[in-house]
Amino acid sequence: MQLSQNISPALNGILETAVYAEDLDVAREFYGGILGMEEVTATEGRHVFFRCGKTMVLVFNPNETVKQPFEKSLPIPPHGSNGPIHVCFSAPPGAIESWTAHLQKNDIEIESKITWPNGARSVYFRDPAGNSLEFAEPKLWDYDPDESN
Amino acid sequence: MQLSQNISPALNGILETAVYAEDLDVAREFYGGILGMEEVTATEGRHVFFRCGKTMVLVFNPNETVKQPFEKSLPIPPHGSNGPIHVCFSAPPGAIESWTAHLQKNDIEIESKITWPNGARSVYFRDPAGNSLEFAEPKLWDYDPDESN
Repeated sequence: MQLSQNISPALNGILETAVYAEDLDVAREFYGGILGMEEVTATEGRHVFFRCGKTMVLVFNPNETVKQPFEKSLPIPPHGSNGPIHVCFSAPPGAIESWTAHLQKNDIEIESKITWPNGARSVYFRDPAGNSLEFAEPKLWDYDPDESN
Repeated sequence: MQLSQNISPALNGILETAVYAEDLDVAREFYGGILGMEEVTATEGRHVFFRCGKTMVLVFNPNETVKQPFEKSLPIPPHGSNGPIHVCFSAPPGAIESWTAHLQKNDIEIESKITWPNGARSVYFRDPAGNSLEFAEPKLWDYDPDESN
């Protein structure tokens, strides 16, 4: 491995993750309605942003975000992808069972359940755009289950 | 909005975010070497995972992750996308300047710098696969800058 120039500064962790969905109204019903995330802001046809713990879930319409920003807009670089993206959320202690039941009551198919070698558990499902979502116990990665992200 | 069945359980926030890159060796040099993230685990040709604060950055080769899992493997649902994905990391107080300098010393082009209406600052750049990365001050979303994700 090539040595980096100097030691890298610190990072606190992920602040925002993006998922892409053409139908933002359906996404809003899912992330806001079923997953119960607080909607923070939206631009019709372009994006809807949700709060999740100390992090943000940004749902973007890729047909808009791939475009270069307008001259008078904030210079946000283009982005956008096709195909299912994976995102995992941290479930508090005891929440895996509650979430599994909640998803099923809302007719969301549980695609997979895994108990990992270290005993941590995950449940997988899809958002309406087909992105692969997961709730996992943070001890999966040796994180303290009582600390919020 | 259609009312969800019951109140949703709690979530602590994002635990894992995925980025897709066909060349995992180059990704390792970037995320591990330049961004200084601790490598946690890897499967050659398929993925390399990094720790970032109390979260995880999962770099996947989409050519492998789109495949259905083998019969004797853990039943991890397929995923994978084409095109640049956006991810934002939380920068501690004062780190935006340090990161900007560090990226430039490592010949990473700064694509954009933004000061948001509430005074929070962001710097944007690309990973080798073209994913759109950002370091931002967490007050962008009214999060306490001294709390780690």
